[in-house]
Amino acid sequence: MGCVNASDVSWGAPRAERADAARNRRLLLATAREMLAESGPDRLTMDALAERSGLGKGTVFRRFGTRAGIFQALLDDSERGFQEQVLSGPPPLGPDAPPRERLIAYGQARIRFLLEHREIARHSIDGRQNVPTGTQTPLSRAHIRMLLGRIPLGAADLDLLAMQLTAALDAPLLLYVSASALDAAADRAERRLTSGWRDLVDRVCRP
Amino acid sequence: MGCVNASDVSWGAPRAERADAARNRRLLLATAREMLAESGPDRLTMDALAERSGLGKGTVFRRFGTRAGIFQALLDDSERGFQEQVLSGPPPLGPDAPPRERLIAYGQARIRFLLEHREIARHSIDGRQNVPTGTQTPLSRAHIRMLLGRIPLGAADLDLLAMQLTAALDAPLLLYVSASALDAAADRAERRLTSGWRDLVDRVCRP
Repeated sequence: MGCVNASDVSWGAPRAERADAARNRRLLLATAREMLAESGPDRLTMDALAERSGLGKGTVFRRFGTRAGIFQALLDDSERGFQEQVLSGPPPLGPDAPPRERLIAYGQARIRFLLEHREIARHSIDGRQNVPTGTQTPLSRAHIRMLLGRIPLGAADLDLLAMQLTAALDAPLLLYVSASALDAAADRAERRLTSGWRDLVDRVCRP
Repeated sequence: MGCVNASDVSWGAPRAERADAARNRRLLLATAREMLAESGPDRLTMDALAERSGLGKGTVFRRFGTRAGIFQALLDDSERGFQEQVLSGPPPLGPDAPPRERLIAYGQARIRFLLEHREIARHSIDGRQNVPTGTQTPLSRAHIRMLLGRIPLGAADLDLLAMQLTAALDAPLLLYVSASALDAAADRAERRLTSGWRDLVDRVCRP
């Protein structure tokens, strides 16, 4: 893991440690975004990020664990803006739309978000065959569960239905993101995935 | 990787190599099942399997890659019987049932199969948070896709719908298998998952 900088170690109170950690986090994410913009994802490695940020390999390693972890952190960071739109943005994604419309809009917005961030998303999936599943998307599932609770669905097992729909939303999308690198195909994938999601919700939520 | 036995190396023609490999495979699976029956999954390690089978660590390593790989191979082996039931067993799982009934029966049988084999399934998922997704279950998806093609579903994107349903079937099940070890909970999980699958198929395939 190489050299460890003095900035890895905080001698202050817990509050000071957290402020330090937050500053390092912001610096690392900002540096990673600069590197992405300048030379693309392939050059963004643990070593290069440590060197450019001046924070030391130990800090970068502990913060991200693996190279995929850098991209996961970038994705999480971008996702915060997306979540704000979901929680308090304009309808039909945000409140003030009927729950069925919001459910369709949520899945379609998530598809668009992940396709827009597909380079980052792809690199956030590490070299293994497994791709993240519903276990990694508790927010998605919680939001889908909340909306299902407001749709008249008879005697459904809403927790399980939320799990099923979250997986049905994520699996084809992550399969696309992990498999393909063609920009031209992304437009077609977006049309297909968004209309497939609408179709599924229409079928599941038919009165 | 330790010692490599003479049986790892085949000097014969390709046909002889394949016979050798098949014999090793059968021996390793039979030995693994004996060890499972005698002392449970925790004692079934790469080293113990090599010692008991007398085949050498190199053979075991190349065959299975990781300890989880042993359990994956055991699961694949058991799954062959299940697949025969699906392809040529009695209805409603096998042919000679209407496709909608077969689709419900297929998911329910898969749930029961994986819950019955949950100790092996759990150990076939390695220590990581990720659990196998639809990418690992091409047979499941192909079967679901075939059945969907025989159900009147209007202008649906059947390939995508098959992917969505496969994920909706697998994700809650694998989440249960990877998270829980309580036998008492398995009965409840079976009832809940099988009726949740029936409910989903009923909703998706309503005329």
